[in-house]
Amino acid sequence: RISWISDIIVVVSPENIETMKTIIEKYGHKRVTVVKGGITRHRSIFNGLKVLAESEFSKYLLQKPEVVVIHDAVRPFVEEDILLEVVMAAKEHGVAGAIRPLVSTVIAASADGCLDHSLERARYRASEMPQAFLFDVIYQAYQQCTDYDLDYGTECLHLALKYSNTKAKLIEGTPDLWKVTYKRDLYAAESIVKDNLSQEICVITDVKEDAVQVGFLLHESLKSRIKVEVISISLCKNDNHLQNMVSGGCYNFICIHDKRSAFQEAQLLVDILEKSNITPSYPVMLISVHLNSSENISFSIGVEELTSIKKFAREVKTKNIWVYGLLI
Amino acid sequence: RISWISDIIVVVSPENIETMKTIIEKYGHKRVTVVKGGITRHRSIFNGLKVLAESEFSKYLLQKPEVVVIHDAVRPFVEEDILLEVVMAAKEHGVAGAIRPLVSTVIAASADGCLDHSLERARYRASEMPQAFLFDVIYQAYQQCTDYDLDYGTECLHLALKYSNTKAKLIEGTPDLWKVTYKRDLYAAESIVKDNLSQEICVITDVKEDAVQVGFLLHESLKSRIKVEVISISLCKNDNHLQNMVSGGCYNFICIHDKRSAFQEAQLLVDILEKSNITPSYPVMLISVHLNSSENISFSIGVEELTSIKKFAREVKTKNIWVYGLLI
Repeated sequence: RISWISDIIVVVSPENIETMKTIIEKYGHKRVTVVKGGITRHRSIFNGLKVLAESEFSKYLLQKPEVVVIHDAVRPFVEEDILLEVVMAAKEHGVAGAIRPLVSTVIAASADGCLDHSLERARYRASEMPQAFLFDVIYQAYQQCTDYDLDYGTECLHLALKYSNTKAKLIEGTPDLWKVTYKRDLYAAESIVKDNLSQEICVITDVKEDAVQVGFLLHESLKSRIKVEVISISLCKNDNHLQNMVSGGCYNFICIHDKRSAFQEAQLLVDILEKSNITPSYPVMLISVHLNSSENISFSIGVEELTSIKKFAREVKTKNIWVYGLLI
Repeated sequence: RISWISDIIVVVSPENIETMKTIIEKYGHKRVTVVKGGITRHRSIFNGLKVLAESEFSKYLLQKPEVVVIHDAVRPFVEEDILLEVVMAAKEHGVAGAIRPLVSTVIAASADGCLDHSLERARYRASEMPQAFLFDVIYQAYQQCTDYDLDYGTECLHLALKYSNTKAKLIEGTPDLWKVTYKRDLYAAESIVKDNLSQEICVITDVKEDAVQVGFLLHESLKSRIKVEVISISLCKNDNHLQNMVSGGCYNFICIHDKRSAFQEAQLLVDILEKSNITPSYPVMLISVHLNSSENISFSIGVEELTSIKKFAREVKTKNIWVYGLLI
């Protein structure tokens, strides 16, 4: 997604390497190199850094970067803003990392399982990811690490301070950077994805008056809650505006037509969606609304139409596009 | 829910006192006294404790307890086990509190927003709730507190250590004790409630052979995933077994009948549910399945039956009971 990142190294445990490669291929991710992980967090990170620095890995054709960002896969909601902030701060200070306020007070336990002392919450922060480093600063730190560091340490900022004598600049991160740890966090993550996907809707009407008017009314009634874009076109494969909506990350479409059997137009939209690369990773909702101007349409024709929409919906569902038909 | 707790004091900000009283009345909570909160956490807790100790509050008729438990409303999933553990530990040690492992490394920031040092994660714990205290230990601590403590402190265990010289026993809590803080935590909490509600299902069949057999097959196919109880009875208002299921906290029922218009039986179950006190706080699911032994039932009679189930479902939905009808 982010053009100024030149390479992405994904460090994976040996048993999951094939699965990861399949995922990367399926979703067409570019600039990604998969590297075998170690038995601890620090050993895995070190393996990833080596690929950028050591000649034995020159087959990967990766350049040693000026700045490297280290991130955890368990924090899936990392935005470009915070990545840019930590990278710019790392350029200036050598090291930078995202932090969050502490939610609970932190206490030290004595050996017998009793309270030794509690920390003043306001003076401390939770260290989160992403963190960014001048490559040489963090790589030299890892090269000097002891086995104890590699086996029991958890904090890259600590290594940079201890071995490269570089103090990290701390950057306030967003709440969404939390670590997906417990089963409940999966539900929380799902809710964030759903929220993001339902932020915007694109209403596509054909150019006839009835349909345009319905589009206008929909816009009026929805605009206070979500971002609504209305496009009135004779849908054709080369419409740029529509292609921009699709590639701009809109996942919800309502097509309004006033003629019967109009789901060819839904078919055209599905074609555009398929040619973009957004559908595999997220489901796209497409509601095809058919306005019936002739009031005395026979029941059997109506049922026939519904049946064909159902058939069409079943077909495109395999492409992660969910079509709903509505006869009004 | 817990019989050995004699009084519950709910400390609420002044503007929410009426709302809280309405909630307590609506759900029929007993043993609850509502007390006005202060402007900080510690001032609110102190207000709550005063009601148990000072003569000016004698109108509440509350006895000074041996042990007091302090808990946060933002940690809704507190189980009897952990409450009992902290209370028993407080009896022995004077003070006890729930802890959890740290999810992120904790770091100290210097005044210029840079890393000062990071803490070794394994030596520290997040201090959570519930916490339990010999009443005199915590009350004396609050009486000696400075205004600074009351305004800026967050940790009751710290006050007990500082002013009553009592070290807390630390008790490992469950992951569900986390603090509901962000919007995503509400979704996580919802998922836990749903999980708990769908752990158990009670299948009620009438005594005829077809229905009993369907009940048996349902039990076989569901038992690997959830707890299933099958009861075959001629449903009557005085069935003890069924009343035990209801008051034992089962929220999901499937009624299987082989006669037409059998939703009188669903009505009887609804009556039992209403007489118990479980429905107001959680929705109850009731699926009424009607087996049709006569194959040539007319379409119109089928539709009529469905219509009456729909009407019935609409009525009881206001009682937080969700009825679904199924004609097979």
